[in-house]
Formats: sequence, structure tokens, C-alpha cells
Amino acid sequence: MEGLTDREITLILDTAESFREVSERSIKKVPTLRGRTIINFFHEPSTRTRISFEIAAKRMSADGINFSKSGSSFSKGETLLDTVRNLQAMNADLIVMRHAVPGACKLIAEHLDASVINAGDGAHEHPTQALLDILTMRQHIGDVKGKTVVIVGDIAFSRVARSNIFALITMGARVIVSGPPTLIPVEIEKMGVEVSYNLDRVIPEADVIMILRIQLERQGKIFLPSLREYARLYCLTPERLQRASRTAIVMHPGPINRGIEIDPRVADGESSVILNQVSNGVAVRMALLFLLAGRREMNQNH
Amino acid sequence: MEGLTDREITLILDTAESFREVSERSIKKVPTLRGRTIINFFHEPSTRTRISFEIAAKRMSADGINFSKSGSSFSKGETLLDTVRNLQAMNADLIVMRHAVPGACKLIAEHLDASVINAGDGAHEHPTQALLDILTMRQHIGDVKGKTVVIVGDIAFSRVARSNIFALITMGARVIVSGPPTLIPVEIEKMGVEVSYNLDRVIPEADVIMILRIQLERQGKIFLPSLREYARLYCLTPERLQRASRTAIVMHPGPINRGIEIDPRVADGESSVILNQVSNGVAVRMALLFLLAGRREMNQNH
Amino acid sequence: MEGLTDREITLILDTAESFREVSERSIKKVPTLRGRTIINFFHEPSTRTRISFEIAAKRMSADGINFSKSGSSFSKGETLLDTVRNLQAMNADLIVMRHAVPGACKLIAEHLDASVINAGDGAHEHPTQALLDILTMRQHIGDVKGKTVVIVGDIAFSRVARSNIFALITMGARVIVSGPPTLIPVEIEKMGVEVSYNLDRVIPEADVIMILRIQLERQGKIFLPSLREYARLYCLTPERLQRASRTAIVMHPGPINRGIEIDPRVADGESSVILNQVSNGVAVRMALLFLLAGRREMNQNH
Repeated sequence: MEGLTDREITLILDTAESFREVSERSIKKVPTLRGRTIINFFHEPSTRTRISFEIAAKRMSADGINFSKSGSSFSKGETLLDTVRNLQAMNADLIVMRHAVPGACKLIAEHLDASVINAGDGAHEHPTQALLDILTMRQHIGDVKGKTVVIVGDIAFSRVARSNIFALITMGARVIVSGPPTLIPVEIEKMGVEVSYNLDRVIPEADVIMILRIQLERQGKIFLPSLREYARLYCLTPERLQRASRTAIVMHPGPINRGIEIDPRVADGESSVILNQVSNGVAVRMALLFLLAGRREMNQNH
Repeated sequence: MEGLTDREITLILDTAESFREVSERSIKKVPTLRGRTIINFFHEPSTRTRISFEIAAKRMSADGINFSKSGSSFSKGETLLDTVRNLQAMNADLIVMRHAVPGACKLIAEHLDASVINAGDGAHEHPTQALLDILTMRQHIGDVKGKTVVIVGDIAFSRVARSNIFALITMGARVIVSGPPTLIPVEIEKMGVEVSYNLDRVIPEADVIMILRIQLERQGKIFLPSLREYARLYCLTPERLQRASRTAIVMHPGPINRGIEIDPRVADGESSVILNQVSNGVAVRMALLFLLAGRREMNQNH
Repeated sequence: MEGLTDREITLILDTAESFREVSERSIKKVPTLRGRTIINFFHEPSTRTRISFEIAAKRMSADGINFSKSGSSFSKGETLLDTVRNLQAMNADLIVMRHAVPGACKLIAEHLDASVINAGDGAHEHPTQALLDILTMRQHIGDVKGKTVVIVGDIAFSRVARSNIFALITMGARVIVSGPPTLIPVEIEKMGVEVSYNLDRVIPEADVIMILRIQLERQGKIFLPSLREYARLYCLTPERLQRASRTAIVMHPGPINRGIEIDPRVADGESSVILNQVSNGVAVRMALLFLLAGRREMNQNH
């Protein structure tokens, strides 16, 4: 998301909006990307993102190939760049890549003619998540310009937070990050956000409350206080939510830890748009596949 | 299978019969489910069942997504219900699920609008196996009503046995279960079956001899006598089969342990319909996909 | 490749040539194999070969099913033959198989009606690699008859070398194998090749220099000298390549070990046709799918 302009983001979201309806038909299929080859190249385990991209590709009639670390010959020591050059030599139109190393997707995009979509690179970025988040906001609270988004939790290690911050600031939203001091990077204000360690104080200002996932595997390391202490201060409970505006929406990128960062009554409650986010994920990915793999052809033809 | 009526079972089997011919063409494809999204969600390893469902979906032109435990983010601790709600939010029409926990499929079916097919839930049920078994019986011995089916082996832990018993009793067949006492549950007669520990005594009465797989991993536990002892009493050998009617058929859900529960000469012999079962599996699954994902649309349209 | 005639090889290559163009279109798809069921059955991990076959099947509009060792019920002890008989019972038209055991593919081909393609069987053969290699040679240096191909490296354990030797000798090429004595089988001359332990001496005669991958996992075993010593004598460096004809081409089946058997400047240099090999892999596999699964139908119709 870093570097994308307001106009580019709006183009993607408008395109996604036009594809949403395809997934609501009984015949969820358009011929737009017939004969395009799309590689889902996931170096890290992923459920929802991989499936969301795969469904998007199928609904656009593209040929999708899945390729994950297990069951492949990565152990044979080939460089990442050689692997993707091989995929390109098989005339792949587009590579969707998740990788543990920050910047890995950018690196390969710079060396390939094929398009590359970053499906999450370490703690760096997760741009399609930010896009589907903003699409969801637009549908529920309108233009994000001037709206206040409170992002809660593990800001320091969250690619979701980083990508959302880049996008929201670009789109003119006000962003407040909230969480324990150990999980908020120093100098994050330079990204244009405000910081509050006191969630209860900022919640009344929120149009959007975006709860991040607490990565339980990090517990025990110095970053995170006890889960109990974390939940006491930052878990979005019905009581806490009552301090917010009645029109505020609750978001979470999933998978959710019920009872840790979000109370089940909130996750399943009226303010929650968590499953709308999931639906919008397919639409945003269809839009990106179209803009990158569909436009390629148009460019080649002219 | 528990709770399905005779009429419902017959509808599925008749529908399957009409789809069998598709798999015998050179162009094995009908457009019936174009644009439907079907998720194969296998929590336990499976070869034949997963591939059979996948082939069925492709021959119906549906968009199938595979999703197994390995390579996914299950380790992240999301609840099963949240996972499938996510799949539904991506507008999946149907979820085919195998899960180690008895009742898991029923649980999610109760919470989703999408259709759910149980592809095996622990030691509880494996309904598509029972359906393909009865379809195979119908083709070889006609209506199962009044016919005698002898099910041999590990009755206590077999979801195949349970589903077949429910279905066969509903369809009016006589069912005899045979195996060592440790592998036959007490009070199984309440399911409407007869019990015999002496296979040789009941084999002459059989129209169908259904051999169950001995799960070798269970050996050494108290349930199973030595394999040698088991094979002496229950392995279906040519000598034992000679005691049966000439028209009796031999079935096995696979994968077979040659020389343990079934002699290779019987498995590959004239009475064996084991590979017919496999072929019928695709037809039964096509029928279920059609009845559940195809009819959905019709319901929505009216 | 062993046993294929010059005419058969030429038919496959000519067919592949006619399919190359499909992968260069923006709509990379022909309806040729619509409704055919192709199983990719990979017992060993594989990246490029599996993906290449999968892309080939999709571009021909076939229905492809992936099936690898992990996530399957192989652990349940079914024999290989029973597994593939099951696949055939589901009306698979063609099985693409990689297996660790030499001869496994031939064995199942002899027992099935379905077509079988060997995608690599242990250290025995890798015929589709040899076919794509010769297709690449034909495009760059013309008819291989009378041309000199120098194959460098681990000849003893390379299925790529074996299949290329069979094919090249059949097509009338001169083949020189070069590598350390421990990696060249005794009596390999009986296959019709010449042997030289001195790569520098034979390189000037080469029209094609085919570098094999050094399997790093073999290091420390008696076969391989130190990697440093190996690279000193056999790594294809720019200096070494200068001794070759200006028109000589450099090939490698991948994945490459940069700096071990091939210098990065050579791998990425003007003489390298390594990525052309990858592109041709898709074309060769499309040709084989067509000849085996497409012709089946024609045979059945007449």
C-alpha cells in the first residue's frame, strides 16, 4: 500500500464494487480471465487468503495453480528468483505470493515481467487486507476521508496494521493506534497516526474499531503482557463497545481469538462487519486480478 | 444416513444412476453446476473420498476448492465454526467435510445456510460410502429389500458399517454383522441387525458380503486378536466364499489389506464388485452435489 | 525413452511445436481435452514438473486432479497397484506419475487401461525432461543428428542423463558424458556414449553443454569429491565456456545450484537456454496429454 495514491486505491475499490455482485449470483462466474494463468505461491501457511484468491481466480475463469512450501522442491536450495523465473517461463500471467521475508514480493516484482500481488510479506505489508478493509468501511460508513479509525492491538508486528495505516492516511482518514506500549513501535507517529495506550479514552471517537489478532505464539516473549492483563485493557467487550458511537463498526482481519482480543458477543453482534470483510476480500481480489492480468492483455494488444 | 427415509435414499440413488453415464463418455462433463463454489474441507487425510468428490465436482463443472489441515492456519486456534462461517462468507454453495470428531458435520450444517455433506466424521458416519454401496448392490442384486447383507469385521469402530446399517435397515434389508466379539458393540441388535461371531455359519445366507477394512494401527490394543487369528476366522478366502451363493457379491470400502481381511484371489475375483463401488462413488457424489448445490438455486429462484 | 523410436520422438516433438503458440497467446487455452480426467500422482516432492503438467492440462481444458503423498492415505498400506486401479475406476483417462522406485510407472502402465506418463521414476528415467531438452536443442541448433552433446556431472544417479542418452542416441546425436569417475557408471559406453573425465578437453567439440544438477544431499557420501574440488573441475564458468563454439548452447534441467555446477554469469548469459527449456516443458506435456488422452477417444470412436 505504501506509495499507492488515493486515485489508484479508489480505482481498485470501484472495480471491486463492480465485481461484488458476481459472487451473489447462483452462477458465480464471468469469463473475463479465461486462459490466464495465475500462480498462488504461498511460502507460509494460509487459509483464508489463499482460498479467497483461489475463489476469485475461479470466478473470473482464470486457470489457477496452487504452490505451497510443503510438497515442493524448495528444500533443493533454488533461489526464490530462480523459482519465479521458472513460473514466468511457463507463461504465468500473475503470481500471488505470500512470503515470510519482508520485501520478498517487491523484489520479485522488480525482476519479472509477470504481475505480482503481495499476499502478505512477513510483518511488512498485507495490502489486499487493507483494500478489503477500506472497501468494507466505505460500504458501512461512506467515504473514509475525515473518519476516525482506531486500530487496537499488536501494532508493532502486524502487517495488517501497517497496510491499513498507509492506505487510510492516504485516503484522508484519521488513524489512532491503541495497545500496550510494548506492542506499539516508537516513532509510529511519523506514519501520520496518533497513539493512545488507553483504549477506553479513544473509543468514543471511533467510526471504525479495527481489532487486530493477538498472535498467541508470541506470548511469553517480552512483548506481550499476560493474556489476562491484555484482555482486561484491550479486549473489545460489549461494555467497552457501549462507549462507542452507535454507528461505529467493528472489524477484525481474522482468524479471531474469541475472548482474548474480542468478546464473542461483539464478534457476532450487530456492529460487527467481520464476515462482510471476508466477502469483500473475494471482490477486491477479483478486481486486482482483473486490473493486473486482464489489463496486461489490453496493453499487449495496443 | 440416520434419519434419511427410504424415499430420500431412493431419490439420491436414482439421481446417481442418471449421472453414471457421464463418467463413461469420453467428454466427461456436464454444465449443471457451472459457477457453483464447492469446498472440499478435509481435516483428516483421505485419498479416494477427496478425489472422488473432486472429480464429481469437476464433471459437474463446479468450481472446487481443496482445503486440508496441512498447509492451513488451523494451528492459529480458530474455532471450526468460525472457519466455515468464513467459507460461507466467500459465498461457498456447499462444503464437503471430513472431520475426526463425530457430529462435527452435523454441527456446522446446523449453523450454516450453505449445504454440508458429511464425508466421514470420526467413527460416526460415512453416508456417501453407504449410498455408493447400496447403489452397487442395486445394480448387481436388484432391490435390497428382503436381501441379506453380511458385514464382516471391525463393526465397533467403523463409520462405514454404521452408515450402511442405518441405510440398509431403512431400505428393508436384513443385516447380519459378523466379527470377533471385541469388535462388535454390545446392544448393536438395537440397530435392527443380527449378530454372529461365526462367519462360516452365516455366509451361505448372504446376498452381499461386505468386508470391512481392519485398521492395522489398532492392532496391539485390546480390541483385536492377532492378525493371524483374525484372518483364520474372518478373512474372506476362496474356500470360505465357496460356502456362499454363486450370485453373492463381495464388497469392500477400500483401501484393502490383501491377505488380512480379504484374500487377493477374492478381491480380484468374479464375485468382487470393489472397483464398481469406486465408480459408483463418483456418481453418488455427483448426485448429491446436484441435489444440494443445484437445487439451492432453484429454491432461490422461486 | 528407452525403446521409443526416432519416428515416435519426432511425432511428439512436432506435436509439441504446434502447441507452443498456445502458451504465447493472452488466452492460453484450447478446448482439446475438455472433459478428460488427468491425475497428477506425485509420490515424491516436485515443483516444476508437477506445475508444468498441471498448466499443460489446464491449457488443454482437461480436468486435473493433484494427488501427492502428503495428505493422502498411503500410510494405510494399500498397494500402489490398488491405488491406481481405484483412480482408473473413477474413469481417469491418464495418470501422470512420479515415484521413487525405478520402473514403478512401467509397472502400473502394464496393468491399467488408462494411459500413464512417467514424470520421473527414481534414478531410472525422466522422459518428459529429455523430450523438452531435445525440443529446445532443435529450436536452437536444428536437427540433433550428428551434433555433439556433452552431458556434465552426476551421470550415475541422474534420470535426466539416462533419458537424454536414450533419446539422443536414438536420434543420431553424438553424446559425451563428463564428470568425476565416481559419478560415471562403469560400462556406460554400452549405452553408445563416449566418456571423458576432462571437461575442458571435450568442451570445444560441444554443440550443446548440458549441465546436471549436483545433488547436494549426496555430498559426504563417497561418490562426490568436495564441492570446491567439483566446481574447480566441472563448474561451467565463463572462462570454461569460452573454449566452446560461439554457437554452443548451455542447458540445465533445474533447479540450478548457482556457483556449484554452473556460474551465475553462464546461467543468465547469452548461451543459456535454461528458461527456454522450462517453456518447452509445457509444450511437450501438452503434446503428450493430447497424444495419449486425446487419441484415446479417437481410438474408441473407431
